[in-house]
Parts: sequence; C-alpha cells; structure tokens
Amino acid sequence: MNRIVTIGREFGSGGREFGRRLSEKLGFAYYDQEIISEIAKRTSLSEQYVQAIVEHRPSFSFPIHIGQSFYSLGNPAFEQTMTIYQEQARIITEMAAKSDCVIVGRCADYILKEYKPFRIFIYADMESKMKRCREKGPEDEKLSDKELKQKISGIDKKRSKYYEFYTGHPWGDKLNFDLCINTTQTVIKEMVPVIAKLF
Amino acid sequence: MNRIVTIGREFGSGGREFGRRLSEKLGFAYYDQEIISEIAKRTSLSEQYVQAIVEHRPSFSFPIHIGQSFYSLGNPAFEQTMTIYQEQARIITEMAAKSDCVIVGRCADYILKEYKPFRIFIYADMESKMKRCREKGPEDEKLSDKELKQKISGIDKKRSKYYEFYTGHPWGDKLNFDLCINTTQTVIKEMVPVIAKLF
Repeated sequence: MNRIVTIGREFGSGGREFGRRLSEKLGFAYYDQEIISEIAKRTSLSEQYVQAIVEHRPSFSFPIHIGQSFYSLGNPAFEQTMTIYQEQARIITEMAAKSDCVIVGRCADYILKEYKPFRIFIYADMESKMKRCREKGPEDEKLSDKELKQKISGIDKKRSKYYEFYTGHPWGDKLNFDLCINTTQTVIKEMVPVIAKLF
Repeated sequence: MNRIVTIGREFGSGGREFGRRLSEKLGFAYYDQEIISEIAKRTSLSEQYVQAIVEHRPSFSFPIHIGQSFYSLGNPAFEQTMTIYQEQARIITEMAAKSDCVIVGRCADYILKEYKPFRIFIYADMESKMKRCREKGPEDEKLSDKELKQKISGIDKKRSKYYEFYTGHPWGDKLNFDLCINTTQTVIKEMVPVIAKLF
C-alpha cells in the first residue's frame, strides 16, 4: 500500500510549506491546488467556483455525514455541492492509489481513512500566524492587526465548519491526528528532515 | 542554557516510557518520581502524602494563578499544599538549572516557561490506553472494561484539574505544546530515535 501523509493546518501556520518540503524530502507526490484544478476539469466548472465551494460549508441544516438522501432531490445547489465533494473524494482516492503522496487539506485524512494515512496537523499561535501572513502575502501588509486577526480567524472558522460538516469530527482535534506540530517556535525547514525520518 | 524537554501525558498513553527512552537516547537526566522523593525529603512528609497532594487539585474555590494571599493566612491545609507546590517548583527549577533533562508531568512546562523548554504532549485513544494499562499494570487485569475506562478517565480528570488550578491553562491544549504525539498507532521505541533528532 502506498504511503500517504495528510496535512491539516491552521491558516498562516506554514502547513503548506511543511507539506511541500516534506514531499520534496521524501520524493512523494504533492497535492494541494492540483485537486481543485482536477475537479474543475472534470465538472466543467471554473476553478474559482470550485475553490469557493470547497472552502465553505454548504448552508444546509444538517451535516453531510448524517445522510442527505431525503433532501437532495430537487435541490440543485445542494446537488452541485455534493457533486463537487464527491468528485474531490474520488480524485483524492485516485491520487492515493497512484503513488506515495502528501495531501494538504481537503478532509483527506477522513476521505482516506481506509488507507491509514499518517495524519499531521500544523498550527501556531496567532502572533506567529500574523507574522507569517505579512511575510508571505503582500495583500496582508495593508491590513491592520485587528483586520488580519479577523481574516485568519475567519478562514479557520470556515475550514472548521467545512471539516465538521463532511466528517462529523471537530476540526483540529488532536485525537484525529498522529502528530500535531506547533510551528510558533519552529523553523519548518529544519523540522521537516527530522519528521521525514518517520517514513 | 540547558536543553529541557517536558512531557505532559494522558494516563496509559505511554508518556513515561516515551520520556525515559528519550532521555536515554539523548543522554539527558530523567526526572519523574524523583521529584516526589525530593519533596518528601525536604518537607519531612511521606512520599505517599506528597504524591496524593501533587495528584489532586486542592479543594479551594479559586485557581492558584489568580492569587491567594488573602486566603492563605490561617488555613493549614491550604498552606501545606502551597508549600508542597512551591517546593516542587523549586526542585524542578533546580533540576533544569543543573543539566539537560527530560521532566515528566508536574506542570514542568509551565514552571519552566522562562527556560523555553521543548514541550511534548503524549496521548492516545481510549482503546489503546486500556490495552497499555492491561499490559503494564497487573492490578488493572482484574478490572472490567468499564471500570478500567473509569479509572483512566478519572486520573486524567484529576491531572486536568490540577494543571488548570496551578497554571490557569486548559490541560492538554495543543497550543501549549510544541509537539503532540498520538501513540495509538505508534511504536514508541521506534518513534523516540526520530524525535530525539530534534535536539
């Protein structure tokens, strides 16, 4: 069976950098934005639209893991969201079957649970996430501290709702991960080669 | 400055084994039960009594980190508990000043925060903790699953209350740790040499 590493992450904690560096170190395939592009291709929807859907929990009144068959009939918005989620699950499963890989976000830890992936969660304190955002994203430079904090919390709140909706588990709960890494005081570049030795 | 590793842990998750193996691998001093013995020696109290105190949050109506000077006068039970906690904090600080070390439990991550310890939290799912308890402790063999589950939850509840009382922080919150390791699917013996490379 292929070796699969899934990375959950708080916005601004460096989870994507961690995943990319880990995949390079291990020689594993790396999947992140590629998943969105592939869904867009298969559904003939725009990447922007798919991105918007997979970043927001659909506004339905019950979580998807409970079951939805009685509701889905005749609700086009619901059906399109489900199509995208199902396509995403299918693509992630195909990627996992193809080769060793690192997959960032997208509920991959849950979708691939049968494959027993090694599940990492990357997080950091707010100050450190703000610092990273300002360094990485020029558009965040213009925001006040308060605005940037709100942006970070807002994105994580959406991720949390999305994850809970599709998996039924609380987002970022350490019990759903094999390893949780706080990047507040960590140099990711130095941490990755050590963690890579676990595989 | 000495390199300090603190280990918080859920009961039955193998945190003590992890800490002991890590200290051996790194050639660091290892402190766990030694702290209790040292407090007993310095306070002329029995080890059993000290153990009981440091495993229970004192039954006062406010957390210690908020302040207690108005209350402590003339309350012998409170004063003895405070003496033991302060002695523990003093001993842990002395140990950290002496050499590189691994310290298990005892709010060491909080007591030593000025020393910037590397803070690890070890946890596991209930099934795996029950399995470990039955393997390690012959006295647990006689307990039913329900009784053992209650024992494990009860001990962790005490640890949680104790930690929160003395530190003002929620126990086991990943944000208070640099690394959280789930031992459910992990062979500790294999994990430790990898983690040791972080130091």
